[in-house]
Amino acid sequence: MNTPPHIPESLSPLLDLEKVAPGTPSRLVEQIAFITEIDRLKSVLRLSPLLAADRRENDAEHSWHLALMVMVLAEYANEPIDVEHTLKLVLVHDLVEIYAGDTCLFDDDAKKDQAQREADAAKRLFALLPEGQDESFHALWEEFEARRTPEARFAKAMDRLQPLLLNAGNEGGTWRAPGVTEARVRERTSVIAEGSLTLWDLTRKLFAHGVREGWLATGP
Amino acid sequence: MNTPPHIPESLSPLLDLEKVAPGTPSRLVEQIAFITEIDRLKSVLRLSPLLAADRRENDAEHSWHLALMVMVLAEYANEPIDVEHTLKLVLVHDLVEIYAGDTCLFDDDAKKDQAQREADAAKRLFALLPEGQDESFHALWEEFEARRTPEARFAKAMDRLQPLLLNAGNEGGTWRAPGVTEARVRERTSVIAEGSLTLWDLTRKLFAHGVREGWLATGP
Repeated sequence: MNTPPHIPESLSPLLDLEKVAPGTPSRLVEQIAFITEIDRLKSVLRLSPLLAADRRENDAEHSWHLALMVMVLAEYANEPIDVEHTLKLVLVHDLVEIYAGDTCLFDDDAKKDQAQREADAAKRLFALLPEGQDESFHALWEEFEARRTPEARFAKAMDRLQPLLLNAGNEGGTWRAPGVTEARVRERTSVIAEGSLTLWDLTRKLFAHGVREGWLATGP
Repeated sequence: MNTPPHIPESLSPLLDLEKVAPGTPSRLVEQIAFITEIDRLKSVLRLSPLLAADRRENDAEHSWHLALMVMVLAEYANEPIDVEHTLKLVLVHDLVEIYAGDTCLFDDDAKKDQAQREADAAKRLFALLPEGQDESFHALWEEFEARRTPEARFAKAMDRLQPLLLNAGNEGGTWRAPGVTEARVRERTSVIAEGSLTLWDLTRKLFAHGVREGWLATGP
């Protein structure tokens, strides 16, 4: 269920901005190359269905939705969080999937080498940025993954809660995939409680609804 | 060229969370209804093509891309800006198009009533949020539109620059539409200079490239 990232046949001419716009300072050339390359995030498909249209969500839309969720739901964080810093974490967290692809929470094979694939992708992608920005983007991605700050714990909670909302709003969505059970979903989303006990309480109610409606199987 | 927003036939059950998750506090019920409703932004299509795939961009992807541009390009703002506040402005700026639709820069008919349509849409959409958040989201949208703060001027510059990058990276994109000329594009994107003279200089180089390549017509 690991989605291979979209690879365009020819790279955009904007990756070679010195030819398109002669005289552009080299630092800005690198920054525009990064901004161009990350357009690919719009083509990395997730498994979750949208709420308002009949298609799968992509990573860019997902990242935007998480940012809005941070703005609206920050008051439920277990610990006080810097909202703006949390916005940066969610905006950047999925960029590595441009090269590493989206890895489904329930794909145990793909999850085995996920950490290495994503670390390689981060190194390659953030290296497009000029000195200083390379390191700061890398640090944001690492902070999100490590969940050692209150902001990262809340950001990760949003990342787990958002697809559950899409499923609950869409007759079960990916909950109906073979082998998915309430116990497995609960285990793999329990990090929501680290970010917000209030939103974990809501999550458990969404699971109960999924089971009542027959969208989410019981059992191990 | 005004794109009608997508209207799903039935609203998501999450808009009526009290039934799905009994006992959820009413403030959180309202917040989840807003988070559910804004999923529709992913279905508001813009005219601009993506760089890395052969389809049109939607407003949610566009908003995410602007946020990343703010993070990367903030150093070029004419005046010092609060990066985090600018992120909020770009994340929220297009939400009104869920009800008002995307209005093309060159559609003079649609532009006549655009301000009224968008003001009505803002009132209706932000009213889904609980007290306090309703007002703060509305204030962010008004700040962006009014361009009276350095952050709003830079945010608007990103909003104008991003589709120009998509066009320049995509063999002209919407520059090739009938009636579009370099002089008209230049006039309607000149607000970029209010946010960043450095990025306006880059913009003029992109126009020159578009003219050289035959993608952008000269004349009035």
